[in-house]
Amino acid sequence: MARLSVRTQNLHASPVREMLSVSQRPGMISFAGGLPSPESFAGLELPPPPGDLLQYGPTEGEPELRAKIAAELIGLGIDSAPERVLILSGSQQGIDLVAKLAVDAGSVVAVESPAYLAALQVFRFFGADFQILDRADPAEGWDKAPPAVAYVTPTFQNPTGGCWSADARRALARACDAHGVILFEDDPYRDLVYEPCERRPVCADVTSASWVYQGSFSKTVAPGLRLGFLTASEDLFPLLVRLKQAADLHTNRLSQWMVLQYLNDPDRDARLTRIAALYRQKRDVFAEALSRHLGGVATWTVPPGGLFFWVTLKGAVSPEALLKRALERGVLFTPGSHFLAQGGACQALRLNFSLAAPEDAERGLAILGELLREQMAA
Amino acid sequence: MARLSVRTQNLHASPVREMLSVSQRPGMISFAGGLPSPESFAGLELPPPPGDLLQYGPTEGEPELRAKIAAELIGLGIDSAPERVLILSGSQQGIDLVAKLAVDAGSVVAVESPAYLAALQVFRFFGADFQILDRADPAEGWDKAPPAVAYVTPTFQNPTGGCWSADARRALARACDAHGVILFEDDPYRDLVYEPCERRPVCADVTSASWVYQGSFSKTVAPGLRLGFLTASEDLFPLLVRLKQAADLHTNRLSQWMVLQYLNDPDRDARLTRIAALYRQKRDVFAEALSRHLGGVATWTVPPGGLFFWVTLKGAVSPEALLKRALERGVLFTPGSHFLAQGGACQALRLNFSLAAPEDAERGLAILGELLREQMAA
Repeated sequence: MARLSVRTQNLHASPVREMLSVSQRPGMISFAGGLPSPESFAGLELPPPPGDLLQYGPTEGEPELRAKIAAELIGLGIDSAPERVLILSGSQQGIDLVAKLAVDAGSVVAVESPAYLAALQVFRFFGADFQILDRADPAEGWDKAPPAVAYVTPTFQNPTGGCWSADARRALARACDAHGVILFEDDPYRDLVYEPCERRPVCADVTSASWVYQGSFSKTVAPGLRLGFLTASEDLFPLLVRLKQAADLHTNRLSQWMVLQYLNDPDRDARLTRIAALYRQKRDVFAEALSRHLGGVATWTVPPGGLFFWVTLKGAVSPEALLKRALERGVLFTPGSHFLAQGGACQALRLNFSLAAPEDAERGLAILGELLREQMAA
Repeated sequence: MARLSVRTQNLHASPVREMLSVSQRPGMISFAGGLPSPESFAGLELPPPPGDLLQYGPTEGEPELRAKIAAELIGLGIDSAPERVLILSGSQQGIDLVAKLAVDAGSVVAVESPAYLAALQVFRFFGADFQILDRADPAEGWDKAPPAVAYVTPTFQNPTGGCWSADARRALARACDAHGVILFEDDPYRDLVYEPCERRPVCADVTSASWVYQGSFSKTVAPGLRLGFLTASEDLFPLLVRLKQAADLHTNRLSQWMVLQYLNDPDRDARLTRIAALYRQKRDVFAEALSRHLGGVATWTVPPGGLFFWVTLKGAVSPEALLKRALERGVLFTPGSHFLAQGGACQALRLNFSLAAPEDAERGLAILGELLREQMAA
């Protein structure tokens, strides 16, 4: 028997991963993942990439791409700079790097409940204990025991789809400043905006705390390129670069080059507008189908952005039991319990609306409604 | 002051990284890195990649690429299978994944002395203690305290360029079997072969121990694509897949697609032969220049493969002092001490021969010879 690290005890199979393999079955309607609609992808009509991209590149990423990203981050109010942008092999990598940087066994990480499940998995793997962050009073308990890190996705939060208010954002920034808590802000959905709402980065209002802000091109260019980025306060940035180097030397240069072409494309703003319009329409169609099929048996808020509906079941139906029966009928979703740092039961489902075609969404939600009514009657 | 993980105390700046930034200075002759010659790159004359690569892909990698790699590994005698190949974002990532899997603070990792420095950095970061592996008697001391992992690059070892004998390979396989030590075999240089020598993977002869074998396309296709792979024993493979998912979800699909095109290219064998011929010639030119300029002041063995000469200085000249003066004259190399797990002084230099043009190699080695003679006279 191989001698494995203690942390492998916290290495659990990913529920999403397991479900994604089921979702490959022919005819399966999946509301489970967070896959963008292929219609939104940038396409590949690009000139051939320059051959000098084939050599090893800098750990931090391509200078032109870093400069372009820094300019946009500064425009959002973040204290960034071209030399403080690190290109990531997707923003999942940023979570790994920050966990390596700040999480020992027993370190406390403050997260929302619910929170992005793949971040919970990484923090848990490195031995984190969780503390639940209350938007209304983020510093609660921090006087006695401040966490090492506060991890948040304040804009179109995964899984709930909601946005933090300006007050809640400022309160979190002040709390991190007052207690020396590293603020880790994950912002992959900010460009998928369907209604006006507060999107100012919390990191923009931090004055003394250390911070990391990260974003992704998976939702606005293409996820298969695996391209994300982070920027961080001056104390943390050089450490994150060393961790990136140890993790994979640097991000592949082809994806960096492709994303730079899209960022420089004069059509870019129009493309973002088209993507938002596409998703707004998908969301509205989904919301109507939800009302028709789950109207009496569940509640939800129509999300102002992002890719998910967070649907809370009325009555004592277990989402896990529902999933079992839904799978038999060819419908897949993610039970809310996977998003709880503290574990335990959860009466919610996360439903992705970006991937399924309208007729599949209609049929899948009809099946869920039917099963729910059956279970509630039983 | 941010609360960082205990392991960040072992997060040191990479000496290679620091040197690579110096190597960007105009006119600098660098023998320091392990950069392939751009002449060896596969080029980008490919049809446009299929658009369905833009969506998220499987964590393990593209099925066709995995099948192709598995077939080659089986051909080398390794107990692999398509479903037990994991595509990596470069083989540096494999080191990170194995360290996460098997290294706690205080875990013992057996390594050669000298050994690949970026592997030492990762193991050190996760808190490893090192044990020095003796090729002639790999199991020495394992009765009392077997290491968790034995990490080796038996073929064209980095930095020495040497190959393990068939006997030494079998002895290591038996030792890992007898003591339940995870064998981690890193094999990035195996196709850069200039003279016949033993290249059979050690993993091919393991019978009961857990093992991980990894390879890279950085030296035979292009490093900028960041593409590597691993295969592993059945007990470890699923855990490595989970770790890969947590690290970056999956490797970018463009690089996977490009490498698959090159693997399927009927010209592939001829291309590998051309690359080996190119490097063999560069090595021979370098060896001649070494003889001319460092003949009396250092010793070395001409490497049968790989990218490096390991040059041991005669007399009491410090490579670090030499590097300081060499940098002033525009010449860069890596001091041997960086490759020692146990730390301490080392009278060797690692000189890369693949990157510098022949006239630069000539000039750079002339400068090193001149400086060495000066220092030895002083």
